Amino acid sequence: MIYLDNAATTRPSDGALTRAKYFLTDCYYNPSALYHGGAEAARLISEARGFLLGQIADPALFSLVFTSCGSEADNQAIFSAARRGNAVTTLGEHSAVFESYKELKNRGVEPRFAPLHADGSVDVDALLALVDEKTTLVSVIHVSNETGAINDIAEIARRVKEKNPRTVFLSDGVQAFGKIPFRMTKDIDLYAVSAHKIGALKGTGALIRRKGYTALTPYIHGGGQENGLRSGTENVFGIACFLYAAQEKFATLSEDAKRLETCKERLWALLDKDLFMRISPASGSPYILTVSSQGRRGETLQRMLWDMGVAVGTGSACNSKKPHSRVLEACGYPASVLDGVLRISFCPSNTVEDAEAAAKAMNEAARAFGGV
Amino acid sequence: MIYLDNAATTRPSDGALTRAKYFLTDCYYNPSALYHGGAEAARLISEARGFLLGQIADPALFSLVFTSCGSEADNQAIFSAARRGNAVTTLGEHSAVFESYKELKNRGVEPRFAPLHADGSVDVDALLALVDEKTTLVSVIHVSNETGAINDIAEIARRVKEKNPRTVFLSDGVQAFGKIPFRMTKDIDLYAVSAHKIGALKGTGALIRRKGYTALTPYIHGGGQENGLRSGTENVFGIACFLYAAQEKFATLSEDAKRLETCKERLWALLDKDLFMRISPASGSPYILTVSSQGRRGETLQRMLWDMGVAVGTGSACNSKKPHSRVLEACGYPASVLDGVLRISFCPSNTVEDAEAAAKAMNEAARAFGGV
Repeated sequence: MIYLDNAATTRPSDGALTRAKYFLTDCYYNPSALYHGGAEAARLISEARGFLLGQIADPALFSLVFTSCGSEADNQAIFSAARRGNAVTTLGEHSAVFESYKELKNRGVEPRFAPLHADGSVDVDALLALVDEKTTLVSVIHVSNETGAINDIAEIARRVKEKNPRTVFLSDGVQAFGKIPFRMTKDIDLYAVSAHKIGALKGTGALIRRKGYTALTPYIHGGGQENGLRSGTENVFGIACFLYAAQEKFATLSEDAKRLETCKERLWALLDKDLFMRISPASGSPYILTVSSQGRRGETLQRMLWDMGVAVGTGSACNSKKPHSRVLEACGYPASVLDGVLRISFCPSNTVEDAEAAAKAMNEAARAFGGV
Repeated sequence: MIYLDNAATTRPSDGALTRAKYFLTDCYYNPSALYHGGAEAARLISEARGFLLGQIADPALFSLVFTSCGSEADNQAIFSAARRGNAVTTLGEHSAVFESYKELKNRGVEPRFAPLHADGSVDVDALLALVDEKTTLVSVIHVSNETGAINDIAEIARRVKEKNPRTVFLSDGVQAFGKIPFRMTKDIDLYAVSAHKIGALKGTGALIRRKGYTALTPYIHGGGQENGLRSGTENVFGIACFLYAAQEKFATLSEDAKRLETCKERLWALLDKDLFMRISPASGSPYILTVSSQGRRGETLQRMLWDMGVAVGTGSACNSKKPHSRVLEACGYPASVLDGVLRISFCPSNTVEDAEAAAKAMNEAARAFGGV
């Protein structure tokens, strides 16, 4: 199987699993236990916190809270920061942000949604026009999970703060962390990441927070773990896998990004342009190529490709129960394009040969589908 | 190492890990993905849901939502159900319930706490006296994580509903599920459980819900997983481990409970009564024996025992940063008793020999500690 649905989830790294196994079979203790074994589990968490944070932020200025997933990190950030006034975001957000914004309405906060360009990136001027003196939170996804478009969040955050310095700025970094070069700037208050998109496990995420931003409230109350900000026995094995997978990914981040950019463009070059149109921008994440085989059902093509040994996505897996991608709809595409969306998403173990085989299979499947 | 801190967390079952590994290395797909591999992951979740629910409830009358831990299940239940009026609980709750009740005050709901008997069980008449026509929620822990005392939640729920049929009844079943015989009754609306207390992994829990109780709201908003009640990519490996560990535990639940009752009473019988007093009731969970070596610091004894090859707890690990157990304080014990608390907690792989060796080590450690 050539697995090219890595934006949905990645295969856990064998190296990370092997190293983390110790925390399942030997050091399985509760990190809150005061004996030696508990302290060792607690040290692993501390080591992971330091490493993960250090890859994208200055640990003197930022801290990190482990959560159970990227969605929880987004929810905690949003419901902590947006308690009054209005909250601004984009039509290109992951559901964890988008649905939380819809929920804000029930809590007396007005959600405002900025439009997108055709490639899935936010229209920054339109976003800024929505920000006013009553805006408590602005959220902008870093890398679009649907198109791979990269929003320049450092610049957007700077301009948001220029307009209203009291506004909290959040970015969902799930498709960026461990994939594209990035450092947190002083204008970004909160940043949500996930483990299972970079070769670690489902069930682990984190929320990175600027230390000066003190209004973060606990989302799960209880034993006071994670400095009181996230109760519940820590997922030690998941956190260990997150650490070890991130060590692998960050060690070769720039080379991987360059190599996958080649894979991505090779795949696109080989696709029959009579069958496929490109949705992803030229300057997007090297990890994501979204195309549409207009008029042909993406889900049908996806199943045909699976039978041919190639796994691809049809858009955000989290939204796969809805007929069309909400985000691509907001990009302005007609139903015929939306019907045929396929998302090819890479991980560092993918090769140019994978890309070539996938392009060949995609062309074949679309041809076999017949005329439209 | 003789590990007797199983109420804090258990060593993951080798059998469960071996069976679940397939969902790390082969079927690692996102359960929302529409191709075959995604559907297979989704089927595992469905199988786990059915099995886990079926062990303690009629699936025609109850449903199950997977969460990231027992604490999240408690939080979701409490903040869904207690939105006005008052909410009643006990002074013997786990922090996930107790701290959530304290938070209710900030949200305009009056928390009310019922007193405990000396063994940690709730004073039922006092609890019922707190329930009135404005009570929206009553929570009673099933098995005390601090003493092993068992609250008869079926009977308590029946009497609560008799007094106010509109009151929602929640029980934290984390120390009961997979350990003591129990079936959900029609008066119990919500029941929270955890995976890592029965040989599965930290990072997985569940909330069981009576189907007629429809007021449960999502706690994490996003992709709409878990029938819209818990968004975020499902922790497939954690859920697989939960299923397989539960299959082991429920297969021998009654025999294990009987055998561990013998272990527990053997350990108690061998303890020097000049050094240790018993806190756990005679009729408590076979899995927990809490004692106090009065005047001697429990934490010091715990560290001495670790060095002698025996791991025991000092009370709820989640509260280990506080000097005394809040729950045992509420049982009415003086500081000298609270100082010396040790909690011995079993799992089915423990033997009578483990219990005997632990008793010997505990006597030695307390003697070595010197006079008080």
